[in-house]
Amino acid sequence: MKPGPQFSRNDLSSLALFEGLSASVLDEVIAVTRCRAMARDTRIFNQGDGHVRAHLLVEGSVRISQTGSDGGQIVVRFIGPGEMFGAVALFTDGKYPADADTLTDAIEFSWSEADLLKLMSAHSQIAINALKIVGKRIQEAQNRLRELSTQPVERRVAHTLLRLSRQAGRDTPDGVKIGFPLRRKDIADICGTTLFSVSRLLTTWEKAGWLATRDQHLTIAKISEIQRVGDNDRT
Amino acid sequence: MKPGPQFSRNDLSSLALFEGLSASVLDEVIAVTRCRAMARDTRIFNQGDGHVRAHLLVEGSVRISQTGSDGGQIVVRFIGPGEMFGAVALFTDGKYPADADTLTDAIEFSWSEADLLKLMSAHSQIAINALKIVGKRIQEAQNRLRELSTQPVERRVAHTLLRLSRQAGRDTPDGVKIGFPLRRKDIADICGTTLFSVSRLLTTWEKAGWLATRDQHLTIAKISEIQRVGDNDRT
Repeated sequence: MKPGPQFSRNDLSSLALFEGLSASVLDEVIAVTRCRAMARDTRIFNQGDGHVRAHLLVEGSVRISQTGSDGGQIVVRFIGPGEMFGAVALFTDGKYPADADTLTDAIEFSWSEADLLKLMSAHSQIAINALKIVGKRIQEAQNRLRELSTQPVERRVAHTLLRLSRQAGRDTPDGVKIGFPLRRKDIADICGTTLFSVSRLLTTWEKAGWLATRDQHLTIAKISEIQRVGDNDRT
Repeated sequence: MKPGPQFSRNDLSSLALFEGLSASVLDEVIAVTRCRAMARDTRIFNQGDGHVRAHLLVEGSVRISQTGSDGGQIVVRFIGPGEMFGAVALFTDGKYPADADTLTDAIEFSWSEADLLKLMSAHSQIAINALKIVGKRIQEAQNRLRELSTQPVERRVAHTLLRLSRQAGRDTPDGVKIGFPLRRKDIADICGTTLFSVSRLLTTWEKAGWLATRDQHLTIAKISEIQRVGDNDRT
């Protein structure tokens, strides 16, 4: 087997999941960490697969998407560096609830269910850190549910762009550039709307000079205008 | 201060949060548990309140509802006996993210943030149990997001009724009766649709003899028909 990329104690100690751990505990974690480099457009796991592992993205971007028994599909989340994914399956039915695909070249850490539970049992701080991470995700999901139930589509698209720019935005001379390729279909899926609606909005905003798309990469030139749409403040 | 209702080790050991704990650990839990009886229509906590506690419903029903900064409101969840609520705030920003109201007379256990974190630190099993509970909630929120994004309103209303009947349904001679009062507005809020749409659907289904409402209590006479609408199987 080809060895994975090299990593050190420092790479782990900066992660929210391992905050507040001693050097010796970090060494225990390292001993059971699998590190893997993946090319762009790699399927990391399939919805419904068993033998689940907890995943943590070190570098790159990953799309999590879910399909219902009726074929309806949504983008659950875009994962950026430092974020966990796939881990909910560990604590529920032991099957991945969604597909995960790399959007860029990427590096991940992962842990088997048995190893992670052993670590959490021995070191409750890891379980408490995981609770904090999962608690934030629940709040985010509830905010999205509320937006989806109560807000018109243009505000939802604006909120999605703002969320992505906070999560994966990089300042460039042209504006805030989202750090991974983004299809209009992805934006539609995460907003719970149609490709048609998203295309119409983005085209309008491009013409107004608020944003630009090149090679599937979105750059927001006027974040204050997008914020204004999100706030519904048209005055 | 009036003493709270009496409770014992057995009342705790049957709860998912305290599964697998020894008698001596359960006694530690009891020592910091506050038990409170509340009348119907009591506001348990307000969205935005600090000094959060983790709550667990022992008896009765509670409605969790959330209001956005733009005034948009959703019912996040109905809580039944044995379920936790309000606890996400402990692991995030220390403010309740929603309002909680009793729908019936009710009894709850609760724990302060400091006491619960102390228990979890000393007994990692409690933190791991909490992760399992929260993991299920995330899956549920993601399923709702997918339904809301991809399904027509009648299927969402059908799924909501089926979910409520699994969560709080009781077999009666007339069908499955939901164990707490339910306004049509509540159903609309949890489905992310309008009162008008819900009323139109429920009236149609009442006329067809699939369900009946009396004193805000809903009884589903023909659960198979509701299931059929949920499955979109009209053949």
